[in-house]
Amino acid sequence: MHDKPIVVCLVIIAHKPQVMGAITIKILAEKLNLSTATISKALSDSHEISVGTKQRVLQLARELNYTPNVYAGSLRRHKSKTIAVVIPEIADSFFSLALNGIEEVALANSYHTLIYLTHEKLEREKAILKELAGGRVDGALVSVTAETDSVEHLYEFNSQLPLVFFDRVCPEIDTAQITTNDFESGYLATKHLIDAGCRKIALLSISNKLNIISERVRGFKKAIVDHNLNDAGSCVVECDENPDRNHQLISELMQRVDRPDGIVATVEKLTTEIYLVCHDLGLTMPNAVKVVCFSNQPSATIFNPSLTTINQPAFEMGKAVALALIKFLKNSSISLPDESIEIPSKLIVRRSSSN
Amino acid sequence: MHDKPIVVCLVIIAHKPQVMGAITIKILAEKLNLSTATISKALSDSHEISVGTKQRVLQLARELNYTPNVYAGSLRRHKSKTIAVVIPEIADSFFSLALNGIEEVALANSYHTLIYLTHEKLEREKAILKELAGGRVDGALVSVTAETDSVEHLYEFNSQLPLVFFDRVCPEIDTAQITTNDFESGYLATKHLIDAGCRKIALLSISNKLNIISERVRGFKKAIVDHNLNDAGSCVVECDENPDRNHQLISELMQRVDRPDGIVATVEKLTTEIYLVCHDLGLTMPNAVKVVCFSNQPSATIFNPSLTTINQPAFEMGKAVALALIKFLKNSSISLPDESIEIPSKLIVRRSSSN
Repeated sequence: MHDKPIVVCLVIIAHKPQVMGAITIKILAEKLNLSTATISKALSDSHEISVGTKQRVLQLARELNYTPNVYAGSLRRHKSKTIAVVIPEIADSFFSLALNGIEEVALANSYHTLIYLTHEKLEREKAILKELAGGRVDGALVSVTAETDSVEHLYEFNSQLPLVFFDRVCPEIDTAQITTNDFESGYLATKHLIDAGCRKIALLSISNKLNIISERVRGFKKAIVDHNLNDAGSCVVECDENPDRNHQLISELMQRVDRPDGIVATVEKLTTEIYLVCHDLGLTMPNAVKVVCFSNQPSATIFNPSLTTINQPAFEMGKAVALALIKFLKNSSISLPDESIEIPSKLIVRRSSSN
Repeated sequence: MHDKPIVVCLVIIAHKPQVMGAITIKILAEKLNLSTATISKALSDSHEISVGTKQRVLQLARELNYTPNVYAGSLRRHKSKTIAVVIPEIADSFFSLALNGIEEVALANSYHTLIYLTHEKLEREKAILKELAGGRVDGALVSVTAETDSVEHLYEFNSQLPLVFFDRVCPEIDTAQITTNDFESGYLATKHLIDAGCRKIALLSISNKLNIISERVRGFKKAIVDHNLNDAGSCVVECDENPDRNHQLISELMQRVDRPDGIVATVEKLTTEIYLVCHDLGLTMPNAVKVVCFSNQPSATIFNPSLTTINQPAFEMGKAVALALIKFLKNSSISLPDESIEIPSKLIVRRSSSN
């Protein structure tokens, strides 16, 4: 890697003289005293940006020979044949399965994969993407952290190198977004519990900054309304990264006078705590309480009782997101947003919600 | 990264002129027509190498100004502040916990961590280490694949950059080896089943090329002999990476006329298959068969029945291996082999082996 960057630059410059200047969105932003987000949106003709601002941005972009959708950094550094995967954690079957899908596609296309863990910290996500934008990789596959409520760092990276999202996506960035049907899955899990007889359902969430979680919550609420259970005592409980605190929260929930008769857990890591609390309180599943979790754990079948799950297409989503990026790296004239797809999840009914 | 290698080289060359020539073990090997492994062993005064060969190697090393234990590559490239973790997989709670330990230490010392997955393939391990030796990182933490039966590629990497091992170690390489007490754990798991009344115990293994597995098997066999159960029908069954094939193997084992009354599973991923086979055959745990698994799954407590485990100190081993490498990167005069430690595992008895 260290021995060849100059050669690589020369080769590419010979083919693409227009990218030599390396005019980035950041430079445009500085010259116009606007944010990089505004520049990016103006260049992609977003309705959020005024006509006047768009004209100023486009005029400067033309003057400086900036080419939107041509990733200068990528073209110069195309030879690393390496893609980064930036994810919150790996002790979760969704991400470990998705990584297997990503690696399968990367291997088949002779790309290396580097895995970076953010541990759900926005500051780490920013630092990792900043370092990567320096050219270590040809592009990045990202699933954002539970803290990610600003997108400047993602715009900035995307002005240097191609960026695609999976699962925890970022619709503000105009690129491929590989998702599953979180709204429908939240609805389906809740409707399944209602059909099984539940009337007071608790949804356990984590950070509502994540669009996948807010979509699941929206599906949950829609199912409650559609079945006229608004006033029956259903609720949303926000958990976090701390198993002890989650245990306490779930324990308090299940000791309320009007305790729920159904639980939808939106995160795999809550499973063990739910089972332990129910066991401690002598609440047998599915009689005293029925449970559905968003989870891909193979061991769900051997839990006591076996766990009803919303199974996400983790492996397929990993393949799709890697394919989108590699397709673009091979042919930068394709439109990344057009590579967006939604792959549906499945409800698998087991003993935790059904006799 | 790409913009600065020349500057980095110049700075270090000014301080360390003796490493300019970049005399590697490979060069010594070529000049003497010996293998890199032989050179490395000769330089570390191994008893496996003849006195004559040692003298030839040392003489040439002196002539060419080669300094053993000074990692020329490392000194030149010291500024990447990045370490590689090369592991077989991540869909395993041992490796995901170990990674958390590694990242905790790396973060505290301002190092970046890159994760490379070999998927148990020796060829991938070789390709990854070959690429890394080119200078992308300052050193590597490795847990070898189930296929790794040759060590030339590890010697070669170690002649360029520091290398330390954890869990699936490689005693042939003279460096830090972070292990747990696999022999004692194999013995303890087996003795626990014997004490609980088992007489015919099956040990389910994977690749016996791995020293951790052969140590666990050795502990198992010693416990059988110590308790005079040699002729009672205990056996070792070698499983692999394929869940369907493992299901078939375990199913056949449990349908034998002299089927085992106890199982020690040396690998976490066999757990679900064991439970499913026993359930299908109506063999209740712990009455019809008692089971212990080497596993760190938090969900072991909610299995039906809860699973007796050998819990490995995964997080602590991750911290120890990262600490060993970073200590060396900060002070290359320390002896890496002296950083080797063994951290004991624990038997946690649950319902799968005890009423």
